Amino acid sequence: MNKIITIGREFGSGGRELGRRLAQELGIAYYDKEIITAIAEKTSLTEHYIQQTVENRPQHVYTMNVSHSLAFQPNYQMKQMQDIYSAQTKIIHEIAEKSDCVIIGRCADYILRDEKPFRLFVHADMDVRVQRCMDRRSPEEANITEPEMRKRVRAIDKARAAYYNDFTGLRWGDVDNYDVCLNTTNFVIEEIAPTLAKLF
Amino acid sequence: MNKIITIGREFGSGGRELGRRLAQELGIAYYDKEIITAIAEKTSLTEHYIQQTVENRPQHVYTMNVSHSLAFQPNYQMKQMQDIYSAQTKIIHEIAEKSDCVIIGRCADYILRDEKPFRLFVHADMDVRVQRCMDRRSPEEANITEPEMRKRVRAIDKARAAYYNDFTGLRWGDVDNYDVCLNTTNFVIEEIAPTLAKLF
Repeated sequence: MNKIITIGREFGSGGRELGRRLAQELGIAYYDKEIITAIAEKTSLTEHYIQQTVENRPQHVYTMNVSHSLAFQPNYQMKQMQDIYSAQTKIIHEIAEKSDCVIIGRCADYILRDEKPFRLFVHADMDVRVQRCMDRRSPEEANITEPEMRKRVRAIDKARAAYYNDFTGLRWGDVDNYDVCLNTTNFVIEEIAPTLAKLF
Repeated sequence: MNKIITIGREFGSGGRELGRRLAQELGIAYYDKEIITAIAEKTSLTEHYIQQTVENRPQHVYTMNVSHSLAFQPNYQMKQMQDIYSAQTKIIHEIAEKSDCVIIGRCADYILRDEKPFRLFVHADMDVRVQRCMDRRSPEEANITEPEMRKRVRAIDKARAAYYNDFTGLRWGDVDNYDVCLNTTNFVIEEIAPTLAKLF
């Protein structure tokens, strides 16, 4: 059985950076957006739409690349979310069978529960996360204000929690569902990754 | 400012053992039951009664060593809990000023919040905790059955949570209140203590 590390994370907490560094430290594979690309291939939906569904909950379906009049009906949206989750489940199992790896988000801790992955949850205080997101804005995001960023961070967390809770029946960010919950507020991620890698 | 590690822990999770090992690894002081003894000295209550109040919530007040007719009234109990908390606060501040140390339980994470302690929460799956408690029964507890032990573990956790929540206004075991939450279900405490010590 391969050694799998799953990472759930609050938006802006540095969970993705920590995952990448852990994978480097341990010399194992790292999966993040690749999963979205693979779901897109399996479902014929755009990556953008899947990202919205998995992380942000769909607000509308205009970005789909499959035109369909039913697309505006909530039942159809629900069916599509289920299709995405189903593709996601299949892909995550395939990944876990391939080799040791780190998998970011996508309910992988729950999907792989029978494989006993090492389940990490990464979080941080809201102010630190907002600042982190402000510091890392892309050029297109240069005009986002701090209050707008705070609103965005809250919305993405809320959507991640809802998606996780809906599909797993568990509560996102509840200590019981993880082996280690790490608050990155007072840590430098680069510095703690080698120490954390030793826990696995 | 001294380096303080506070450890909140579910009953039977091995939090106390981990704390002791961390203190050993780091060569720093370790405080656990000593705090109860010090509160007893300050309040003229028995250690047994304080333990009940701090960890198990008082069921009755017969074990007090200060006889008082008001003792049977809930308001008096509440006043006493506040006196205990007040003594506890003072003692924990004194301890923190003395030297680097590990402090087990007693809302120390909250009481010392301005000193920025390293806040650890230790927990484990219920079955593992019950088994751990069964394996470590004292000779007087030899007849306790597994279902009785499960009931006891639940009751102590419930009381610890209530005491913490009442006095801090925070939620015991909520990831936001800690730097690291460690699930000991799949760890051997002896093995991970040296690695964890490196995080501090």
